[in-house]
Formats: sequence, structure tokens, C-alpha cells
Amino acid sequence: MSTVPPPFPTPQESVGHPELLQLGTALEPDEPCLRADAARNRARLLEAAARLVAERGADAVTMEAVAAEACVGKGTVFRRFGDRTGLLTALLDHSEKKFQAAFLAGPPPLGPGAPPVERLRAFGRAMLRRSADELELQLAAEPGASRRFTAPPRRVLRHHVAMLLRQAVPEADCELLSHTLMGQLDPALIHHLTRQCGIPMARLEDAWVDLVDRVTGTATGG
Amino acid sequence: MSTVPPPFPTPQESVGHPELLQLGTALEPDEPCLRADAARNRARLLEAAARLVAERGADAVTMEAVAAEACVGKGTVFRRFGDRTGLLTALLDHSEKKFQAAFLAGPPPLGPGAPPVERLRAFGRAMLRRSADELELQLAAEPGASRRFTAPPRRVLRHHVAMLLRQAVPEADCELLSHTLMGQLDPALIHHLTRQCGIPMARLEDAWVDLVDRVTGTATGG
Repeated sequence: MSTVPPPFPTPQESVGHPELLQLGTALEPDEPCLRADAARNRARLLEAAARLVAERGADAVTMEAVAAEACVGKGTVFRRFGDRTGLLTALLDHSEKKFQAAFLAGPPPLGPGAPPVERLRAFGRAMLRRSADELELQLAAEPGASRRFTAPPRRVLRHHVAMLLRQAVPEADCELLSHTLMGQLDPALIHHLTRQCGIPMARLEDAWVDLVDRVTGTATGG
Repeated sequence: MSTVPPPFPTPQESVGHPELLQLGTALEPDEPCLRADAARNRARLLEAAARLVAERGADAVTMEAVAAEACVGKGTVFRRFGDRTGLLTALLDHSEKKFQAAFLAGPPPLGPGAPPVERLRAFGRAMLRRSADELELQLAAEPGASRRFTAPPRRVLRHHVAMLLRQAVPEADCELLSHTLMGQLDPALIHHLTRQCGIPMARLEDAWVDLVDRVTGTATGG
């Protein structure tokens, strides 16, 4: 049920992601010191919290509910995360790291080994599916306007998109084009489209694939 | 120096913009009752405030500074706008209406009469230039994540982009594609790129034109 995240990042891939080490440091200040069983316990609690978010929304994630879901005492959850805010922050970091491991070192087409356009398509689909599960959590954690584009997790994702774009369309302004693509995956936009406009997630996935094809000149266009 | 905004909206164009009447109502509750000289006075004060924003930033817009810039007594500004918040709100509304008049009924290529792809290119360039002048003001007025996509001015702009896209690429999911294009013109993104990354506005304009061409299949693509 609960698994320890794969080693992260792989040395080869991190070369293309200058901010990754910095992010890793920011996300797990005390992680390297954890013994293996403590790390497994922590991952188990976070997987339990993630299940609660997916099944009942972010509001359902309380220290008590996570303890019950993971079959441990409440004290264990408090010792590990301090308070609910600490738990939610750790939960997003955990999800972020799992996702990064998947696109940096997981199987293709999300991970290395597939052509860049296929990886871009898979990246957006995976991001959209992740947002479908964690939307409340992502919205609650969204930084203000001045920090929205500089928060480390987003920068790592955008760097990845820019790297794939440079492989697919080297002649384009891939730095700016990566912002365009990331905008389509913005949690606030996904919330608006799915919850406020009632657009099904499948249509968002189709639109993503179409956008990637248009931007990279893979489809016939107009 | 100061001009009364052109009649707005024109009946033909408003057909394609179902939210325009609603927006018009929201923006000018007492406008229809103003006598012509009062309306001219109001426009003159707002043009003075707009000059201050463009020259010295949003912080420079105080009731006193606007009065001095427009060569009227301070009391006139207070009577007309109530307080600084009222003035800034009126200023954004005024700018919004001038811009809407330009793309709905002004000369081509921004206004009607040019092919849709040319109008899209001109629309983004005009939006970027407007943001260069008013960025602080737009950022200060940015609604929270849950309202960012439903605020009336943004909806009118996005509807316009969707309408042009439907003319240019009728086979595409123009509703979702219009969100993609609008994301590129988001004030928070423009702030990040120009102020935090030091990217010149000219490069943003080039990237906009390139994006429009890619999305509509006008350029060679990749």
C-alpha cells in the first residue's frame, strides 16, 4: 500500500534542472537523518493523508483522521508533523517529490526515453490527473501573485517543460513558451474550468494534447 | 489631451460579447445620468491619474496629486471619487472601457476589419503595452484565485479572444485555447517576466505573435 519514494533525483537528470538540489534541500531539511523505519512511517502517514484528500477533500485531513486512516496513535501524527499546517505542507511536498521522481526518472513516456513531444503530452496529462486528486490542497497552498511564479516546485516543473520544448522546437522562445504551457496547468484555472464551468477533466486533457501539438507543429494546425 | 471615450459598445459587436452589457452596468452605475460637462470633468481627472500611473507608478496616485495634475481643487477629486480606492477602481474601469472600445469598435487591426489572426496579434500587443503602463494598478486590483477567472473585465477580454479564435481555427477547442492565450497576458506573469527576470517587453510581444501563429497554424511551427 505505502511505498518509499524512489531515489531522487537521478544525477544525470538533475543536470538539466539547476534548481532541483535547492528544492530538495528546502523540502526535506531533516530527511537525510531519518532512519529507514522512521522514513517508512512518515511515508505511510502521508499516503494515508493523500488517500483522505483524494476521497474526501482537503478539509477531511485532520491529525485524528490521518491517525485513524494509518492505524497509528494520534500522538505519532503530532510528533511527526507538529500541526495540521505542517501535515498539509509535508503532504504537498511528498506529492511533489513523487511526481518529480516520475517525470525525471520514471518509465516513459512521462519519464526519460520517449520523444520530447510525447513526454510533454504525458506531463500535462499527469499534472491534470494530479490536480483532479489534490485541487483543494493545491489551491490552499497557492502563493500570492508576486510569488506565484517563483515558488520552487513550480519552477522545477516549468524548467522541465522548457527542457522538453528546447528538444522539440529549438528555434522557439522556449523559456516564454514554457510559461504558456504551464498556465494551462494552473490549479486556479483547472478549478475554474472544472468546478465553476463544469468542463470534464477529459476535455482538459484533450485540449492539452492539442495545445502541445499546435505549439510544437506536430498537428496540422488550422 | 483628455478625450471622452467613444460610444461603447457598438450594437453589432456586443452580440458576440454576451457579458458586455452586464459589465457596462457594473462599471458605470451613474454614468448615464451625468451631464456632458461632468462626464468630461471625470474623464479629465482619470486621464490625469492615468498619466501619474504611467510616469510614476500606482503609489504616486493620491487625491492631492491627481488634483494638482488636473489643475482642479482637491475637493473636486474627493467629491467625484470618494476616496483613493474609489479613484483607483474608477481608473481601472476607465482604462478597461477605453481598451474595450478600441478592440470592439476602433480601427483595425485591433478593431474590426482585419483578419482574425492579425486582430489576435494586435490584441496581445495592445494588452502587453497597456500592462507595461498599468502593471502596479492591475496587480493591486487582481482578485484572489477563486475569482481570478470570473471577474467581468477578464471575461470580456477572454470572450473576445475566443471569438477571434473561432474565426481563425474553428476546428479547435477555442474556449480552452482562449484561456491559454489569456494566460500569456496575465499581469502577474508579465510582472514576473519583466521585473523579476528582466525580460524586455519587446521579447514578450514577439513571443505573443509567435504563440498566435503556432496556435492558429499560421507559422511553419517546429
